[in-house]
Amino acid sequence: MRVSFLLGSRNGVAQSARAAGRFVTWAIALSAAFLMTNAVLAQSCSNVPFVNTLMPQPAQLATAPGCMNVDSAFSVASVGYRDTRLDAATDRMLERLSQIAGVPRHLPILKDGSSASLVIRVKAEGDAVPSLDEDESYTLTVTNDHATLEANTVVGAMRGMQTFLQLVQANGATGFVVPGVDIHDKPRFRWRGLMIDSGRHFEPVSVIERTLDGMAAVKMNVFHWHLTEDQGFRIESRVFPKLQEMGSNGEYYTQAQVKEVIQYAADRGIRVVPEFDMPGHTTSWLVGYPELGSAPGPYEIQRTFGVHDAAFDPTRESTYKFIDEFVGEMAALFPDAYMHVGGDESNGKQWKANPRIQEFMKEHHIATTQALQTYFSQRVEKILEKHHKHMVGWDEVLQPNLPKDVVVQSWRGTHYLADAARQGNQGILSAPYYLDQLDQPAAQMYLADPISAKEQLTPEQVNLVLGGEACMWGEHIVPRTIDSRIWPRAAAIAERFWSPASVTDVNDMYRRLAVMSLRLEAAGLTHISGPEAGLRQLAGSENVGALGTLAATLEPVGFGVRYREQHTTQLTPMDHLIDSLRPDPPLRHELELMVDELLADAPHYEKNRSQLTALFQSWVAAQPGLDEMASRSPLLSDTRPRIEQLPELGHIGLDALLYLSSQRAAPSGWAASSTQTLENDKKHVGLTDFVVLDPLQKLVNAAAATH
Amino acid sequence: MRVSFLLGSRNGVAQSARAAGRFVTWAIALSAAFLMTNAVLAQSCSNVPFVNTLMPQPAQLATAPGCMNVDSAFSVASVGYRDTRLDAATDRMLERLSQIAGVPRHLPILKDGSSASLVIRVKAEGDAVPSLDEDESYTLTVTNDHATLEANTVVGAMRGMQTFLQLVQANGATGFVVPGVDIHDKPRFRWRGLMIDSGRHFEPVSVIERTLDGMAAVKMNVFHWHLTEDQGFRIESRVFPKLQEMGSNGEYYTQAQVKEVIQYAADRGIRVVPEFDMPGHTTSWLVGYPELGSAPGPYEIQRTFGVHDAAFDPTRESTYKFIDEFVGEMAALFPDAYMHVGGDESNGKQWKANPRIQEFMKEHHIATTQALQTYFSQRVEKILEKHHKHMVGWDEVLQPNLPKDVVVQSWRGTHYLADAARQGNQGILSAPYYLDQLDQPAAQMYLADPISAKEQLTPEQVNLVLGGEACMWGEHIVPRTIDSRIWPRAAAIAERFWSPASVTDVNDMYRRLAVMSLRLEAAGLTHISGPEAGLRQLAGSENVGALGTLAATLEPVGFGVRYREQHTTQLTPMDHLIDSLRPDPPLRHELELMVDELLADAPHYEKNRSQLTALFQSWVAAQPGLDEMASRSPLLSDTRPRIEQLPELGHIGLDALLYLSSQRAAPSGWAASSTQTLENDKKHVGLTDFVVLDPLQKLVNAAAATH
Repeated sequence: MRVSFLLGSRNGVAQSARAAGRFVTWAIALSAAFLMTNAVLAQSCSNVPFVNTLMPQPAQLATAPGCMNVDSAFSVASVGYRDTRLDAATDRMLERLSQIAGVPRHLPILKDGSSASLVIRVKAEGDAVPSLDEDESYTLTVTNDHATLEANTVVGAMRGMQTFLQLVQANGATGFVVPGVDIHDKPRFRWRGLMIDSGRHFEPVSVIERTLDGMAAVKMNVFHWHLTEDQGFRIESRVFPKLQEMGSNGEYYTQAQVKEVIQYAADRGIRVVPEFDMPGHTTSWLVGYPELGSAPGPYEIQRTFGVHDAAFDPTRESTYKFIDEFVGEMAALFPDAYMHVGGDESNGKQWKANPRIQEFMKEHHIATTQALQTYFSQRVEKILEKHHKHMVGWDEVLQPNLPKDVVVQSWRGTHYLADAARQGNQGILSAPYYLDQLDQPAAQMYLADPISAKEQLTPEQVNLVLGGEACMWGEHIVPRTIDSRIWPRAAAIAERFWSPASVTDVNDMYRRLAVMSLRLEAAGLTHISGPEAGLRQLAGSENVGALGTLAATLEPVGFGVRYREQHTTQLTPMDHLIDSLRPDPPLRHELELMVDELLADAPHYEKNRSQLTALFQSWVAAQPGLDEMASRSPLLSDTRPRIEQLPELGHIGLDALLYLSSQRAAPSGWAASSTQTLENDKKHVGLTDFVVLDPLQKLVNAAAATH
Repeated sequence: MRVSFLLGSRNGVAQSARAAGRFVTWAIALSAAFLMTNAVLAQSCSNVPFVNTLMPQPAQLATAPGCMNVDSAFSVASVGYRDTRLDAATDRMLERLSQIAGVPRHLPILKDGSSASLVIRVKAEGDAVPSLDEDESYTLTVTNDHATLEANTVVGAMRGMQTFLQLVQANGATGFVVPGVDIHDKPRFRWRGLMIDSGRHFEPVSVIERTLDGMAAVKMNVFHWHLTEDQGFRIESRVFPKLQEMGSNGEYYTQAQVKEVIQYAADRGIRVVPEFDMPGHTTSWLVGYPELGSAPGPYEIQRTFGVHDAAFDPTRESTYKFIDEFVGEMAALFPDAYMHVGGDESNGKQWKANPRIQEFMKEHHIATTQALQTYFSQRVEKILEKHHKHMVGWDEVLQPNLPKDVVVQSWRGTHYLADAARQGNQGILSAPYYLDQLDQPAAQMYLADPISAKEQLTPEQVNLVLGGEACMWGEHIVPRTIDSRIWPRAAAIAERFWSPASVTDVNDMYRRLAVMSLRLEAAGLTHISGPEAGLRQLAGSENVGALGTLAATLEPVGFGVRYREQHTTQLTPMDHLIDSLRPDPPLRHELELMVDELLADAPHYEKNRSQLTALFQSWVAAQPGLDEMASRSPLLSDTRPRIEQLPELGHIGLDALLYLSSQRAAPSGWAASSTQTLENDKKHVGLTDFVVLDPLQKLVNAAAATH
């Protein structure tokens, strides 16, 4: 709690910030509950204004008169179709409700809805295995002291339960309520995915399961599990045990664990689509089975990242026999109708270097290695067909003769999705949603729509766009850091996939994202606590002090910059300052808003002014603490320049506020030298970038223009 | 990172505090590493002073000249006995070392020690199943650029690896080193346990496993698993499935999960001793099998806490047949030689109320219900003997005819341990180590020794004291809060069990405990991040602001006070402010030290003065933020008085500093009224107590005495 003990003196800032309206709404929605047992709130809640913090936004929402109290008298009934999956989901909702609003734990699920606070009415089970065609729609109506959730399927009811939980808000200090609403909701896209690469760095089952909890909270429905890579083969095969025994450093999922994850996902209405990347990205397969390769080997687990030459030999029947047996084993393990076979970044070098393969290409009139890969893809597609799986591949598989059944996942560019559609193939968009691009703010990903207007697709072609997937590639993530890379940007992407295309207000998104971020933490994710724990390790103290002040102004560099500057491999420890920074840190958008409001001379002028002053002063005050830390921490040595830069930025900000206040004109040359400093500070330092430079430049320009 | 963004302005405080020497040592020891790949440190470390942050302290430690660099050239060899358990432990050590000091990941374990940085030499496997007689001793010598770890057993080597990791410290900003040391270490007690009650609240496997990681880090070796309670039966029985099906709300461990936990513990040299509490605390058994009870039933899962009447019928042979079959099933599942059968808090009411049982007592000349329980215990002991298990029981089982083979666990008082020894029974001390006594500081538990001097035991009797166990009872814990209740007080207790009795310096313990606390967080425990996440939920904001300032000055009330005042049951949500407070929060001991140093006019006078001034000012400044939060949070309503009291305390502290500075004499009546305020603030409010009142009283007294 030492961290907290140091928070007090800035409280004025926090308070005025909340009063300024940006935090107050989610603060209201999130105040946790404590109700003495047996206490029932007398006060009615008839006049509680609805504060919309829903994420994703529903398809249709209308406020209704009245509302219902959520207190120790709360009860729930399930009066339609019922099964263990629905009851388990209801129990999870009730447990969350007890955490949010102090409802007693282990409430029974009643059969009689006549007197229940919340009545759940489900028509039918829906798909036994979550599918692309699952009906996820629901309606949720809340009136005076009564709520009704109706859905055609169990999964639809689950989506509605998440919405119900998000509707709970505090009624001042008196208790918790759900305001009157009438919601008719269903997803815009059928495929709303998140991909995790367990190949380059292994992620334990506990990480996967908490990620599934986060996905359920934001209504995502496809977990794309990238299980094999050059750097690791992460799933147990009983048919070919040398795959995991020799290709994983002992870090792989047993089939029992995989079954557990699939069940965990299905219980939350989430599909699990496994990816077995081939013919490239297959080094780890070849360690145990070199005969699959296009070069003799021997092979070792690949430690470096990037595109490697190792590739299956597409000319040997033995290769397809192996794939057939392996796919057969995996098809029996994964119930989903789709299987991903990669197909990306196959450079063809081993094929060109192998005379026998060159001979084969001549014989079969295969002109290019791309064409050879198409031949391979077609053979693999037949194997998947035999095992009753639809094939998914990265956009390299999009070639003239690609079977129409194949789903194309666009990663190199949005246009591949349109190209696939024009060719009659279904598609999934991922290119704008690469979470390892740590320098891309949530807003940028939020505004990228799977349906690109400029591609001018026909309605039929638009229907071929199944949806999108956020991708979490594994080069630079470990269990402590993965959540801070995925969440909460993924919540904004999830809204893009679920909500109407017209929902595009960025400021409102950030307001709700801040609420969602705390909900996700309550659901067990560590995107806030992980970076904080990292800073404590770096500071060597529970009190991160000035290091926290600096960290709040920084974001990580993008994937490529780190890869080039740090020469990262699978052997590189991921515990540098960059690993304790969050993409799109809250201060970035908050500072933009504060500065814009200030310059617009908005009603919050004085509040923003005092808030900005305190912030800039904290940057100046941080220097001695940062110097002291740097003097004893090998880690911070390469970020040393930032320690000098932060106080400079603080002084620029304070000067700008002074000159803006018209008490004194900016001396000649001040604006120019300040601008030069801001320009210089844009350079990457120690794998970090400042997120505060643009609003500071605005302040400088405005200050210079005063008088 | 908003929290961190608010830390800057108090940095002067943190910095001077570190300079004052309390934090600098652990800061040095803990600075995390970042070494660019392939970078090798040239600089020698020959003159690095050894900073002792070891916890627990080793039996014998001598510093030696020289030291070794820990950098990207680090290598390890295992040259003696080797097996998969040793290699896995070595891999875990290497992974931690990469996090601490930037050593590359996935280092190979060499066979040839001639050029390795660290050479591990193990004589033999030791016990296949960790046992009470395991040899845990090891020697660790570090000289110039070379370290040797020698142990008779694999477990001994594991203990030494934990010590090696704790020896790594930063060499200024240049890199990481292990200073020259010569350590000969072995535990003082053979039984160093932690008990977790999974019965009253269920704890998932992930919680159990991270707890085992924490135990391994502080060299604890017995996990006592309290698996059955009135409120829940938490383990799958295949012989009597209605036990978990009807007695657990679906919250129980499958036998597969139990096997996983046992293996996880064994891999860390930790025994798993299961407890099946009988004849009392058995309501959850009787829900499915009422015929076991002494009253007809039917029974329901007990939601309230305390002592209940439900008890096995000790007069029916069918009871012992059931126990025999159940114990047989569990004996096959748990490999440990010991099994705990509870025996506590059996009130005998059902026995007295049952004519048939009364008849039985007459027939068999059993005068009291205590005697009837002894009869029951003897029958159960025979059953355990048949299944080759030694019996452990709570100290109620200590009766005249108790078989000598039974181990007595003292919980009602230390003297029961001595009584057991005098009666020739082995014993384990738990009475002083009840972690649910949240108002007991680490120092109090630390100074409680299993060997009580005043009991004047003979050497033979002393040998019957096996050690001790910290107990985490489950009435008021949930997965988010359990770590903050166990750690880091348990690390101080672990030192009591491992280190020589002469190691009793409380200030030095707290200095090292602060280091250990961060190590435990790095090991995956959430005793710091859990409460912080809780405060964010309460504040409804990522920035906990003033709530953090208040929380840092508060500790939770003890178990009994909460139980009485909140009327807690298993249905009570555990998300009140008390659940986001830590026992013995760092500020308590830190403030004591600062005030003592100030009043002693120590060299740090000025630093402490400015630090105290800033602290007291932060309490004054907290009020508006706390008022604002309280106005919108139902939860904080009952702590409202604290919001008024904190600024008052701040003013008292600031006034005292002023009068102490001799600039002005304290006005007459000031000391009296301040003392009255401090007295009044000692009352429990909202289940919280202040931890800052005693040092404030010291300041007031000293200020009043000035002039």
